[in-house]
Amino acid sequence: MNFLEERIVKDGVIKPGNVLKVDKFLNHQMDIELFNEMGREFKRRFEGVEINKIMTIEASGIGIACIVAQHFGVPVVFAKKTQSINLDGEMYIAEVESFTHKCTNQVIVSKKFVNPGDKILIIDDFLANGCALQGLISIVHDAGAKVAGIGIAIEKGFQSGGKMIRNLGFKLESLAIVSSMDAESNTIEFMPQ
Amino acid sequence: MNFLEERIVKDGVIKPGNVLKVDKFLNHQMDIELFNEMGREFKRRFEGVEINKIMTIEASGIGIACIVAQHFGVPVVFAKKTQSINLDGEMYIAEVESFTHKCTNQVIVSKKFVNPGDKILIIDDFLANGCALQGLISIVHDAGAKVAGIGIAIEKGFQSGGKMIRNLGFKLESLAIVSSMDAESNTIEFMPQ
Repeated sequence: MNFLEERIVKDGVIKPGNVLKVDKFLNHQMDIELFNEMGREFKRRFEGVEINKIMTIEASGIGIACIVAQHFGVPVVFAKKTQSINLDGEMYIAEVESFTHKCTNQVIVSKKFVNPGDKILIIDDFLANGCALQGLISIVHDAGAKVAGIGIAIEKGFQSGGKMIRNLGFKLESLAIVSSMDAESNTIEFMPQ
Repeated sequence: MNFLEERIVKDGVIKPGNVLKVDKFLNHQMDIELFNEMGREFKRRFEGVEINKIMTIEASGIGIACIVAQHFGVPVVFAKKTQSINLDGEMYIAEVESFTHKCTNQVIVSKKFVNPGDKILIIDDFLANGCALQGLISIVHDAGAKVAGIGIAIEKGFQSGGKMIRNLGFKLESLAIVSSMDAESNTIEFMPQ
């Protein structure tokens, strides 16, 4: 097991319905040292890949993205899920609907902050069905920019998002890929990497 | 002018209705180097103050809080504005209403992550009327913890939030305090610090 898998086993909580709670260190309370270890690992996995910007989506992706950005020396843009007074001017808006109807989201980024020629690393905390990720990819392409890579903390390998994204040819690196989890026996297994 | 005031003058956009847009570097696209400079400055201003946790509120406070946390060597907890499946167990919920009716927010933190004896530095990007901040303070006190300090990037000094918080005796440090701004002449003035 790598450092993140070990941490999930230690501090994650498995709930019925394939819910994995990692609010102790990832998406409510945040362990900044762990985020730095993730940053070093993403830097290693994307060695030699040209990246000039990191993109993520509010809210829980932002902290990871900011710490990871330090290891790449690039700025971060975070996509919003709702239009607010903080957004004006022209925007890229991706409407994302899932076949499970579990997610219908808007993903919104100001046109000022994604430019043709940008080489973007997308960072997020979770990948399950991949709705948010699909919206982010769509916006990067709308802007004439390139998805240089996708870095995910925890992928639910038994859901379809990761497979689909890899089938499409994207360089997707998930630090922990859960292959199965069971609330009753409190067990979790990871795909070998 | 300090580094943040200079950056506001250079890259901020003043809009009618006392709206200051800083989406180029603070709350949509995020300049991580600038956040580190803010972290160093907060560390200097809170020198000698005992702090074991940083608290902020989603979404735009998260990035700043995570980078600032590195300078204090502490974890971050971010409050949520809506209840989600990521939240379970007992929660502190502050209902915050403003006299201007411009904000009615919930501020929600899991009870697991604020403990009696915690010495908490609250970090946020903006302070105007201070609704979100009032909710955060209320939760820290509900938990029997202490607000060790409050660090804000940009305070609108012509609104009441900052004055009220200082009147209450909190150690509030805002890196830039806007005393006036005018969209027509595109001018902004800061309070001397």
